[in-house]
Amino acid sequence: MTVINTHKPIRGFLKKQIPLIITVLIGVGLWYCPRPEALTEVAWHVFAIFVATIVAIILKPLPMGAIAIIALAVTTVTGTLSINEALDSYNKAPIWLIVIAFFISKGFIKTHLGLRIGYYFVMLFGKSSLGLAYSLTFSELLLSPAIPSVTARTGGIIYPIAGGLAEAFNSKPNQPSARNLGTFLILVCFQGSVITSAMFLTAMATNPTVVVFAQDLGVNISWNVWALGALVPGLLSILVMPLVVYKLSAPTIKEIPDAYHLAKDKLKQMGKMKYQEWVMLGVFMLLIGLWIVGERIGIDSVTTAILGVSVLLLMRVVNWSELLGETVAWETFLWFGALLTLASQLKSKGVIDYFSEHMAGFVGGMEWVYGLLILSILYFFSHYFFASSMAHVGAMFSTFLLTSIALGAPPILSALLLAYFSSLYGGLTHYGIGSAPVLFGSGYVALREWWRVGLIVSIVNIFIWTVVGGIWWRVLGFWG
Amino acid sequence: MTVINTHKPIRGFLKKQIPLIITVLIGVGLWYCPRPEALTEVAWHVFAIFVATIVAIILKPLPMGAIAIIALAVTTVTGTLSINEALDSYNKAPIWLIVIAFFISKGFIKTHLGLRIGYYFVMLFGKSSLGLAYSLTFSELLLSPAIPSVTARTGGIIYPIAGGLAEAFNSKPNQPSARNLGTFLILVCFQGSVITSAMFLTAMATNPTVVVFAQDLGVNISWNVWALGALVPGLLSILVMPLVVYKLSAPTIKEIPDAYHLAKDKLKQMGKMKYQEWVMLGVFMLLIGLWIVGERIGIDSVTTAILGVSVLLLMRVVNWSELLGETVAWETFLWFGALLTLASQLKSKGVIDYFSEHMAGFVGGMEWVYGLLILSILYFFSHYFFASSMAHVGAMFSTFLLTSIALGAPPILSALLLAYFSSLYGGLTHYGIGSAPVLFGSGYVALREWWRVGLIVSIVNIFIWTVVGGIWWRVLGFWG
Repeated sequence: MTVINTHKPIRGFLKKQIPLIITVLIGVGLWYCPRPEALTEVAWHVFAIFVATIVAIILKPLPMGAIAIIALAVTTVTGTLSINEALDSYNKAPIWLIVIAFFISKGFIKTHLGLRIGYYFVMLFGKSSLGLAYSLTFSELLLSPAIPSVTARTGGIIYPIAGGLAEAFNSKPNQPSARNLGTFLILVCFQGSVITSAMFLTAMATNPTVVVFAQDLGVNISWNVWALGALVPGLLSILVMPLVVYKLSAPTIKEIPDAYHLAKDKLKQMGKMKYQEWVMLGVFMLLIGLWIVGERIGIDSVTTAILGVSVLLLMRVVNWSELLGETVAWETFLWFGALLTLASQLKSKGVIDYFSEHMAGFVGGMEWVYGLLILSILYFFSHYFFASSMAHVGAMFSTFLLTSIALGAPPILSALLLAYFSSLYGGLTHYGIGSAPVLFGSGYVALREWWRVGLIVSIVNIFIWTVVGGIWWRVLGFWG
Repeated sequence: MTVINTHKPIRGFLKKQIPLIITVLIGVGLWYCPRPEALTEVAWHVFAIFVATIVAIILKPLPMGAIAIIALAVTTVTGTLSINEALDSYNKAPIWLIVIAFFISKGFIKTHLGLRIGYYFVMLFGKSSLGLAYSLTFSELLLSPAIPSVTARTGGIIYPIAGGLAEAFNSKPNQPSARNLGTFLILVCFQGSVITSAMFLTAMATNPTVVVFAQDLGVNISWNVWALGALVPGLLSILVMPLVVYKLSAPTIKEIPDAYHLAKDKLKQMGKMKYQEWVMLGVFMLLIGLWIVGERIGIDSVTTAILGVSVLLLMRVVNWSELLGETVAWETFLWFGALLTLASQLKSKGVIDYFSEHMAGFVGGMEWVYGLLILSILYFFSHYFFASSMAHVGAMFSTFLLTSIALGAPPILSALLLAYFSSLYGGLTHYGIGSAPVLFGSGYVALREWWRVGLIVSIVNIFIWTVVGGIWWRVLGFWG
């Protein structure tokens, strides 16, 4: 007994430290591991720190912001990078787009404009459970270009509507009644959040980072090009997905004549559009408008976003302390920046080139079409191993893009396909994208069901985005 | 009546908007004002936005973070700067030192190590009111190199001790009894916070920014040089100041034998040093040590600070959500960055050179010693017009430094003198430095008293730092 009593706390403590110990062992192991001759010592050290950071992001010994700070400390204290190199990413416009994005999301949620739009759609199309599903995905589609945090969009706007509807029709989580309606709606909302995230540069926090990585390899993706490329495959996915989920996980409730009244009541409760909602609507249209035409009149997407937030602040729709309280914005800023720095350094120090040469060796000799397909599908399904879209992008995007280009695939085509997949792969698991924990946490969907539907919808998405997408991108002149 | 009822809210609304209206009028007015021929249109527009931003920081139509965002929006939407130029300062190491600084301060306050140190000093020297005053200023001096937020240091550590002591000896704010002890202690703490802020690069959030401005003009100030230059005049100021305040605003309570017991009781209540306090103490010594020797072993001051926070996080002394909750760190980061960008652009676009040429015209022909003296004293007293040290530095530092150099003053000497004054001038008013609102808000000191003591101590400081400082800097070889 005594032995157990004295050892238990230590064992418990050590057990808690396992993720940290693994992270350190991997980092230190790689650091001292004999390196390929082609790489310099500094390059190899950056690689070791980078891998340890990715491992830490996956194992979570500490929150991600803390990991970012520690990664910066290790990088600079060891002299691997100078302090100026280590902080180099924090003046990159796309990284700031993420911060500003969270601020804009706050406006949507605070003014309830998002909720109002959602209930309108329910009123219009919500006469059946399938109709409800379309109402919810269309609402999300409409909101997605201006709410670049998928967690905020789904968790703050779409989920409250979907959960509220399920509850209203007596479909309760963690009970057999979940299958009546809730399971179906939540699955649709989840897969909808994944598809809409892929459709706009400003629909998901990882997307701007993808743009920076592509830029590092000489491929420029503007807001317009991103949206245009996603238009046809995205809309098709949005249309097909609810049908697929309906087939796979049908709700027992099919017709819902009452949904109309329920939505109408909700809207009645909300009353007339208030001053703040009108301003938010105006800013929303300003943002979308400027993102579309901005390039032609010389206003880039980040400037547009900053302008949007400025208007919200000046018109007192949001106040500064509310924005400052969105600490997740700063945390994301901090660790995206750190990861971006490490990944950029991997590129500039030749590590990415080294690995992509080796990968190209495996798929070499192949026609680029097949090579790109294999690479992108490999990229897609490796997301089973990642608990964050950003960690995955940081670890693999540049290498896969460079390999594709080395095979002879058109750069913009390869970049876009991998970029879209960087959101779409989120649909596979209950942890791979920001909206997953929120919706899975609702308790409406069993784990098995979640993964089964996720896999099948993902296969449908891959088919649509490669085949239909491929044809569409040929029409647009991205290849061929 | 009806007339009043309808007009009053509008009038009230307009009245509230006066600071905003003035800011906009000044900005727009300058924008369209005919510009000096020597300046380009873009340079003039940067100047107009810069002046409007400074006016906004002084008049506060919106919180400073909001002003920074709006300034960035105006700068980029008008095409005055590209988005990359506008965000350029956010990867500068000194700006990050500010964020990290707030994180370290959190550790001191959370672990109560600062308080414990304070009470120790009180126990040692606190047998008279003058002794108490020295206890408090020495505590602050000891803590200042590692707590770079003067607001946190004074508000979170020194003020609780000083206020608690005053209360314990029945000296209450806003009452005649305030003069028994509280008035004197609070005034000493305030002037102490001002002097200690000047003594270390890492003792005050504005200091790292000063370093960037100086760097822009080719003058490098390291942590060591800053501290070494401040050593003699700083210690002298710390020793003399309590005597001066004692003379000007004597407490009626002179001897306090009980202070010893009170501090001892407090320390008893706190119990033994806890694990977290020991770690904090270790980090504290690590920081000071590395800041002193870092340059020689190739570890710069920002890397040191990041390392310190990493240790605090890894050893679970602070947790990440606590650091993330220090929103003032992010706000400061945001607006220091914006202001730094504008000021740097003023330099690179030739506006600073233009103004300093004109200023040099006025003081031209003078020997540089007199020129530098006049300029620095002018710089000091113009702080009556500024509600923030940073606004003042942003508005005037570069121009004054460049003018001094143009007169023939040694660059490092001029930069240091202006740098030290950039904290010391904070002692003039009840709004000019972060510690002022906290301490003035205590209610122990009447406004008139505050300003009178502020003026006289400032004059003493100016004398010490120019004359004794001047001799010390000559010994160090900074001039002559």
